[in-house]
Amino acid sequence: MNKYLKVDPWCIIEDHLDHNNQRSSESIFSLGNGRMGQRANFEEAYSGDSLPGSYIAGIYYPDKTRVGWWKNGYPEYFAKVLNAPNWTGINVMVDKEMLDLNVWKTLKFSRVLNMKEGTLSRAFTAENKKQKKVEVECIRFLSMNNPDLSVIRYTVKPLNFSGTMDLAPYLNGDIRNEDANYDEVFWDVTVTDSAQGTAYIEAVTKKTGFVAGFAMKYQILVSGKPASFGAKADKTDKYAGNSVSIKLNKGEPVIIIKYVAVVNSLYCAPENIKAEAQTKADMALKTGFKKLYNDHIQVWDTIWQQSDIKIDGDKEAQQGIRFNIFQLNQTYRGDDPGLNIGPKGFTGEKYGGSTYWDTEAFCVPFFLSTAPASVTRNLLVYRYKHLEKAIENARKLGFKDGAALYPMVTMNGEECHNEWEITFEEIHRNGAIAYAIYNYINYTGDKKYLSEHGLEVLIGISRFWSQRVSFSQVRKKYVILGVTGPNEYENNVNNNWFTNTIASWCLKYTNESIEYVKTSSPQRYKEIVNKWSFDEKAETGKWKEIIENMHFPVNEELGIFVQQDGYLEKELKTVNDLLPGERPINQKWSWDRILRSCFIKQADVLQGLFIFENQYELATIRRNFDFYEPRTVHESSLSSCIHSVIASRIRYTEKAYKLYLRTSRLDLDDYNNEVREGLHITSMAGTWMAIVLGFGGLRVKNDKLSFNPLIPRNWTSYSFRVFFRESIVEVLVSKEKVSFSNHSDTAVNLQVYDNDYVLTKHLEVDILK
Amino acid sequence: MNKYLKVDPWCIIEDHLDHNNQRSSESIFSLGNGRMGQRANFEEAYSGDSLPGSYIAGIYYPDKTRVGWWKNGYPEYFAKVLNAPNWTGINVMVDKEMLDLNVWKTLKFSRVLNMKEGTLSRAFTAENKKQKKVEVECIRFLSMNNPDLSVIRYTVKPLNFSGTMDLAPYLNGDIRNEDANYDEVFWDVTVTDSAQGTAYIEAVTKKTGFVAGFAMKYQILVSGKPASFGAKADKTDKYAGNSVSIKLNKGEPVIIIKYVAVVNSLYCAPENIKAEAQTKADMALKTGFKKLYNDHIQVWDTIWQQSDIKIDGDKEAQQGIRFNIFQLNQTYRGDDPGLNIGPKGFTGEKYGGSTYWDTEAFCVPFFLSTAPASVTRNLLVYRYKHLEKAIENARKLGFKDGAALYPMVTMNGEECHNEWEITFEEIHRNGAIAYAIYNYINYTGDKKYLSEHGLEVLIGISRFWSQRVSFSQVRKKYVILGVTGPNEYENNVNNNWFTNTIASWCLKYTNESIEYVKTSSPQRYKEIVNKWSFDEKAETGKWKEIIENMHFPVNEELGIFVQQDGYLEKELKTVNDLLPGERPINQKWSWDRILRSCFIKQADVLQGLFIFENQYELATIRRNFDFYEPRTVHESSLSSCIHSVIASRIRYTEKAYKLYLRTSRLDLDDYNNEVREGLHITSMAGTWMAIVLGFGGLRVKNDKLSFNPLIPRNWTSYSFRVFFRESIVEVLVSKEKVSFSNHSDTAVNLQVYDNDYVLTKHLEVDILK
Repeated sequence: MNKYLKVDPWCIIEDHLDHNNQRSSESIFSLGNGRMGQRANFEEAYSGDSLPGSYIAGIYYPDKTRVGWWKNGYPEYFAKVLNAPNWTGINVMVDKEMLDLNVWKTLKFSRVLNMKEGTLSRAFTAENKKQKKVEVECIRFLSMNNPDLSVIRYTVKPLNFSGTMDLAPYLNGDIRNEDANYDEVFWDVTVTDSAQGTAYIEAVTKKTGFVAGFAMKYQILVSGKPASFGAKADKTDKYAGNSVSIKLNKGEPVIIIKYVAVVNSLYCAPENIKAEAQTKADMALKTGFKKLYNDHIQVWDTIWQQSDIKIDGDKEAQQGIRFNIFQLNQTYRGDDPGLNIGPKGFTGEKYGGSTYWDTEAFCVPFFLSTAPASVTRNLLVYRYKHLEKAIENARKLGFKDGAALYPMVTMNGEECHNEWEITFEEIHRNGAIAYAIYNYINYTGDKKYLSEHGLEVLIGISRFWSQRVSFSQVRKKYVILGVTGPNEYENNVNNNWFTNTIASWCLKYTNESIEYVKTSSPQRYKEIVNKWSFDEKAETGKWKEIIENMHFPVNEELGIFVQQDGYLEKELKTVNDLLPGERPINQKWSWDRILRSCFIKQADVLQGLFIFENQYELATIRRNFDFYEPRTVHESSLSSCIHSVIASRIRYTEKAYKLYLRTSRLDLDDYNNEVREGLHITSMAGTWMAIVLGFGGLRVKNDKLSFNPLIPRNWTSYSFRVFFRESIVEVLVSKEKVSFSNHSDTAVNLQVYDNDYVLTKHLEVDILK
Repeated sequence: MNKYLKVDPWCIIEDHLDHNNQRSSESIFSLGNGRMGQRANFEEAYSGDSLPGSYIAGIYYPDKTRVGWWKNGYPEYFAKVLNAPNWTGINVMVDKEMLDLNVWKTLKFSRVLNMKEGTLSRAFTAENKKQKKVEVECIRFLSMNNPDLSVIRYTVKPLNFSGTMDLAPYLNGDIRNEDANYDEVFWDVTVTDSAQGTAYIEAVTKKTGFVAGFAMKYQILVSGKPASFGAKADKTDKYAGNSVSIKLNKGEPVIIIKYVAVVNSLYCAPENIKAEAQTKADMALKTGFKKLYNDHIQVWDTIWQQSDIKIDGDKEAQQGIRFNIFQLNQTYRGDDPGLNIGPKGFTGEKYGGSTYWDTEAFCVPFFLSTAPASVTRNLLVYRYKHLEKAIENARKLGFKDGAALYPMVTMNGEECHNEWEITFEEIHRNGAIAYAIYNYINYTGDKKYLSEHGLEVLIGISRFWSQRVSFSQVRKKYVILGVTGPNEYENNVNNNWFTNTIASWCLKYTNESIEYVKTSSPQRYKEIVNKWSFDEKAETGKWKEIIENMHFPVNEELGIFVQQDGYLEKELKTVNDLLPGERPINQKWSWDRILRSCFIKQADVLQGLFIFENQYELATIRRNFDFYEPRTVHESSLSSCIHSVIASRIRYTEKAYKLYLRTSRLDLDDYNNEVREGLHITSMAGTWMAIVLGFGGLRVKNDKLSFNPLIPRNWTSYSFRVFFRESIVEVLVSKEKVSFSNHSDTAVNLQVYDNDYVLTKHLEVDILK
């Protein structure tokens, strides 16, 4: 835990420079626009400890797998998001001495992430050993309006002297990933060019051959007016830039505005990259800072219109939830089905920026409610496009006949995670991907997605489950052996209740979907049958048999679902039995001890009850919550939010709030002392769920928006907006009332506390206490 | 499988040079003397593919652990036996052209491992591009009589020309381990010295600081007479040697005899190493080849007197078993309790030359029967000396109060294996180490070992088990959760029958041992109680409670012990259901598939029935064999031998023989296509067990040697000798009779087929058919 930031409803504010916090701040103040991300590294030189991080969505490197002993079936590589060439750099020399806040004395310092506008600003005053003081103000943004463009405005003012200021805006391809398995450099810089006022570098990723071109233009203003200057063009084999020497009078500011266009081979033929990048940089220069800035904040304005959550009476919570919504929107814009959401987004190297089941299990609900349907649809199409790879992945593990196992971690559809416990055993991800299809259609009503893409994915997934189960002669039931459930503090268990449940559900939903598509799009259904050599009768027959005979571990006496066979044989302690010095157990206990303990890392049975809530009585959910919550250590950032939603559902309001608090400011207050590695982007969607699905009780049932609101004791009110089909509905929950506003012209059918309403413009319902 | 060697009762013979076999032959023709080992690398230069391997017992390097994702409790390093400086090298230049069998044409070639004498010879004729032919004969041995000394006699003869021969005997410290995790060099060469007739190098291992000094002397004979010559002394910072230029007439042989002494800091103060090594090399030179050779083969003669197995009617089996006995004796001599037996001995890098449970489970029975009791005793004392480290190891995993967990892999008592499934979960090793104490005392009658060392180890181990069990409220039994049994094709299982059985046995045996020591050595018992703060009443009371309430998975219907909870839920196929293309499954199947299949890598329940045979009825053993053997793929070299012994016990003679065949020539015929990596030294003891404990039925019961012999159908007869206390008993089993000879003056009490006899000199018993 490290609380060093100021509380503010719209901004994240650091009001002094502490070098020990530098890496953490670089993460927290990250900017992104869905296509690129940039840690909050300083523009000017900084010789202190820092993790440079500039990332381009979809561009990765297959870093050769590092393991102890190789196990058959391991993928050859772990895909890594790459630290891309540095485009932010502006070296500043003050009378020939490099400005470096690790060397200069910092007299004042502030760093501000303005979430309303999507900008990062800094202002500081620094003094060198000769007592020369300069004042710097800078602001940057990665344009949300034109995601290939980024702009920095950097102002330096000599405070107590007149002298020479050398400004060197540059692009630098001499970069590395800290997490490289074998200390390899991942990029080859192939072009460096510079001329007065401009620079260009182009780099190609090794092995994958992605090309990225960075074009820079800039302008310089002295005392607010365009200055003519004699710029020197510099370049080496990895670096291209300019340097400009300017004589300034005391108190006279120089402003440099740097425009950078980044164009890559995902969107542009490699041979055209240079021209396109340069054209875009030119255009940016011509358009100018002000208009680019206005266009950019306009997009943010729309985002906030759609997705803001307001909390009255709890400033920290207000800041926390906005930070989460902000970062999620910086990470994924939903305009390209080739992209996805890495657990750390573009804010660090860890987890490789790849796609996990986090997307379907945590981010889909967020984007369903806060963005147009097309955004979530693209997340689904992403998996559709990987169907062939998922089949290949399953084939590598010995499955056949079109069975699809989606990867645990991927950039391009291939599995690239190499811990057998996770890669081979956490197969519930396949269920989450199927469930996201259901969830999307249920929420948006876009039923034709099934025939267009969904059914093919469902058939592949169901084929996997039908081969993955085995029949136990002892139980006379189908069993699923050797899995790791969501709770990664167990490995290689049999009959994980959640996995068996979601597997069985997948088979059911596929059968229903087949019926639907067969009826609604018979021609398309025939195409699918032919494409996948689908033997409907035999295959769905087998699936039905499995559905009817699946083993689900339960304990009648306790009235609970059992996490997996044998779980109840453990010493059934609770988290309260742990000494403070034993936590977090993943740092204090050896792995074997964790494995054989009853302690749960992350919601497992409760994850299932969260997803399939409708199928169970509240009393059942409550009994399971009462049993599992006291045994859950929540050492995954994806855990507490699920428990919180359930706690709200069963009206454990205090508990729901406590669980929400664990996720709310995870990164801002650095609960786990690891924010320096990057932000927990995907778990941010969990926090949103804790409020909207938890406190607000949002569900979609029978094509109706349904709410079941409560309000935490120390909040005065909270409000959120959700997309629902053609409408945006605003919900304001106060101590006494829930008010609904319809921001569209279409009436919305609502259910509130199980009563039906039609929301035309406004509606008020008393809080049910 | 690769059968390229000639069959011969006493020799391993390669009669032509195939470069593809070079690494394999380097392994198979390895020499060792318990203190050093040397792969059969050529003396002269060889530019073909080769794994240079020279190893010094007990000298290791802690190679930094390489894992994918770190798990808490992992050791920091994996101990590696080091490839030590090359002491065998003799470069040969023929008219200034380097003799290199990868470049020259080989006209004749033979390589012979003489197992009776413990020597490696080569003879070849080679021709260069100018048609100059040379004939080479060489022989080498690592002295069994003086384990610091090694000798090479190398003869070169120009066959069809007269010319200059340059001979360069040398020592070279510029070596590496192929299996280095981070490509590090493990040795620093600190001294290189050379003068006419002599060379010396000294090297220090990085991190561990072991020092080894290599001193070389040599003599040269032309036409059988000492030749005076002008040697040139050469050295670099890693190399020291001489070069000698000799003019030879056609057909005139030159002989170089190279004497190398290797002295290391395990046995000599570092500052004295150089002097001692040089003195030893001098002495060797003075003693001369012939006497050193005679002394060496004398030791082998004694070894064979004690441990030979003769097989009539099966030449391949004869060669196979002698190869195994030979290699085991080359690996471990039993004169230093600081040394142990690596799974690959001194024949390759794999498995790091460290100590595994192989020693107790497989090698102890071999050495008990084939060597004086002191040899096995030293293997036990090795573990006694590591007791403190075993306690520390357990402490790192969260155990306390003197609980000892011996490491899975170790050089110095510290755990150095880093797969959690193995390191943290294969805790049955702790049982094997306790059982070896029982086995040793039962065999040798050396009951005072208990008070001297054994009891302390047993208490540490029992303390571990009593903390490692947990009480299941569901079963009302003690359970052992989260283990990997001997069958490594299961991970993280609950209540592995073997582990629960050996744990329970340990507690029982410790209690009995306490009673024995308390009665027989009350003073020593008090010492032990004080030393270990042993609370007899409380601790043994707890142990008794565990013994009485341990859960053992059984299936009454099938009448078998169940490998672990849930095993019978698997699809119970047999190995016959596998297609040939699916085997070995560890190469053809992904890991998850293996884990959830019923297939067993290595004897597990049967391992328990092998060890605790006396506790079970034959019918029970048979039922379990009938159930488990068809499900065992024997993909560990340590598996078939155990099944073979049991098959003999239950009189499945044909099956016993078939299982024996799988182990008999594992390395000679390279069954698994991996002999190039080194020999399966510890599994060789298993082959010996299959004959002596299996076919011969040797047991020790109530201080009596007991036999239960059978003879495989296609053998005419077989005989073996065993140490038993003060006697050596020879057993000859033919088709009709079993003959016993007593090679001592002490009468031996025998049991044969459950009848009692007294063996004075000779005894004959009819074979029971």
